[in-house]
Amino acid sequence: MPEFDFDTITLGHGSGGLLTNKLLEQGVFSLLSNEYLDQQHDGAIFQLNGKIAFSTDSFVVSPIFFPGGNIGDLAMNGTMNDIAMCGAVPKFISLGLIIEEGLKVEELWRFLESIKIISDAYNVKVVTGDTKVVERGKGDKIFINTSGIGEVKSQAKIGMEYIQEGDHVLVSGNIASHGMAIMSVREGLEFETSLESDTQYIGDVTSNLIDAFGDKVRFLRDPTRGGLATVLNEITSKLGLSIELEEGLIPVLPEAKSACELLGLDPVYVANEGVFITVVSPEISDEVLNIMKKNPKCSDASFIGKVTSNYPKKVIIKSGIGGRRVVSMLIGEQLPRIC
Amino acid sequence: MPEFDFDTITLGHGSGGLLTNKLLEQGVFSLLSNEYLDQQHDGAIFQLNGKIAFSTDSFVVSPIFFPGGNIGDLAMNGTMNDIAMCGAVPKFISLGLIIEEGLKVEELWRFLESIKIISDAYNVKVVTGDTKVVERGKGDKIFINTSGIGEVKSQAKIGMEYIQEGDHVLVSGNIASHGMAIMSVREGLEFETSLESDTQYIGDVTSNLIDAFGDKVRFLRDPTRGGLATVLNEITSKLGLSIELEEGLIPVLPEAKSACELLGLDPVYVANEGVFITVVSPEISDEVLNIMKKNPKCSDASFIGKVTSNYPKKVIIKSGIGGRRVVSMLIGEQLPRIC
Repeated sequence: MPEFDFDTITLGHGSGGLLTNKLLEQGVFSLLSNEYLDQQHDGAIFQLNGKIAFSTDSFVVSPIFFPGGNIGDLAMNGTMNDIAMCGAVPKFISLGLIIEEGLKVEELWRFLESIKIISDAYNVKVVTGDTKVVERGKGDKIFINTSGIGEVKSQAKIGMEYIQEGDHVLVSGNIASHGMAIMSVREGLEFETSLESDTQYIGDVTSNLIDAFGDKVRFLRDPTRGGLATVLNEITSKLGLSIELEEGLIPVLPEAKSACELLGLDPVYVANEGVFITVVSPEISDEVLNIMKKNPKCSDASFIGKVTSNYPKKVIIKSGIGGRRVVSMLIGEQLPRIC
Repeated sequence: MPEFDFDTITLGHGSGGLLTNKLLEQGVFSLLSNEYLDQQHDGAIFQLNGKIAFSTDSFVVSPIFFPGGNIGDLAMNGTMNDIAMCGAVPKFISLGLIIEEGLKVEELWRFLESIKIISDAYNVKVVTGDTKVVERGKGDKIFINTSGIGEVKSQAKIGMEYIQEGDHVLVSGNIASHGMAIMSVREGLEFETSLESDTQYIGDVTSNLIDAFGDKVRFLRDPTRGGLATVLNEITSKLGLSIELEEGLIPVLPEAKSACELLGLDPVYVANEGVFITVVSPEISDEVLNIMKKNPKCSDASFIGKVTSNYPKKVIIKSGIGGRRVVSMLIGEQLPRIC
């Protein structure tokens, strides 16, 4: 961390004046420097040709540091994953910070370092940004908005509308880890567990799948807030089809499962930050799983069920002993401020 | 406003589940509907070719309604103006809402309607978005992030680096109106005044100037936080030149001037939301002013000074009676949460 001549963020750092400049020059610009950001104009200018994916996400997770990551990791991976789920490769990111007066500069620096690491690892450049500061008690340490631009892969044909009866539903890894890791550190809810958030960029994996299988990869989505059940319910309610899942095939880490049981939560509703669902043509299902499992990010990938027409507009989970339950859409808030 | 089956926003509306869907389906999607947003994917997909400007801004203004506008107007005009200042025409906007639990749905609707009006007026589409809800006391009614994408005009060659000694500095309208309008409604600081925020999109004017004069328009910037003085100081400190302003030529409404005097503020530091500064080649200065003044948005446009080398890295204001003062960069916070 460079030498800052202040320890905490004050309202002055959001003034647009000298203090803002110092924070940016000594902090953000020096760390995240690239040819676009360095222009320090009101916006970044670059050349783009072709189909573009554009996405935005604000992150308000509490606490801002948690096992396996922090709000900075989440803000980068989250928006980059959203772009990847459009069948695109993320290229440019904007960074909007809303800081509560009193945040330690050292904490801010840790977020920025996390952002830098992900930016470097996947060559996704932070090209423009904005910093606001609000009074103590009018925010909660830091909220981060990231918006991103990616280039859609020419072979990609991703969309709910391409899903067909008979298609297979796969999940790229253990579900519910992020949500339960956050809960594990929330006030009054600490477990004796090593459970970590799964926050990670998974667009490199989806990109490989699109390269290998083109339009046979019908649909991609990262099940964040609302979890697996919410995404699958969106599909069934939109298409009038059903999805039948095998309970025993849905991967959940034992720690996450125990934590869910303790809190009376159903893992299928719990947020994920490094997992994707894909719906694929049945003939490529095994091959897709093989490719996914070769990548350590998806070593627990699993086939979890099929698209059918047996229970129109419903998601059904079949238990090992032959029971069937309908998994509806989550109504209200299960876990507030999970991302 | 459509019939919502709830009056206030609760944490459940940020869950990603059914309540979020209701809010979006009944509210955002129905009002802002367009071919891209209607896809309801994780991001919007569209075709772009050429030079692109990308910008982001978070809005945390307090109060969220103020004379002349609201946080919704500000969020649209602000980011669209930032894109225009890059010499571009804004096309696509993302909308990230961070709502404090308890916000009235009716208030949210008013913001969305303001956004819709601007979106329609300038054919700038809200194509993707995100809604988060934080607990009471962890936010302040609503924060809005907008990020935007625009197409850079082929004739545009806008940048601080193009500014030359002898260039003229023009301002498109009365300064300090936005900042003083906000102050006028802040608790304990109410004036007997009709002062209104100047929030407006000014990119149509800058676009006309670029069409007419190409690279003779050297520089564009909307002086928001930190005001006129901050932007001009950024220029002089970067280029090593000076800017000499004529105090009597800087347009300020009498109400804004009085309010500034009452509060001991200097109008050159006060935020604007519908004014731009342009630095132009001297031979086109008069013509530029004529074009600007024909547009009601810029009827008070004025030549305010010149780029010189007499006082390196300094901004100087010359008073009517021959005095000279250095206007440095604002150090800390003059008016917190002005945008």
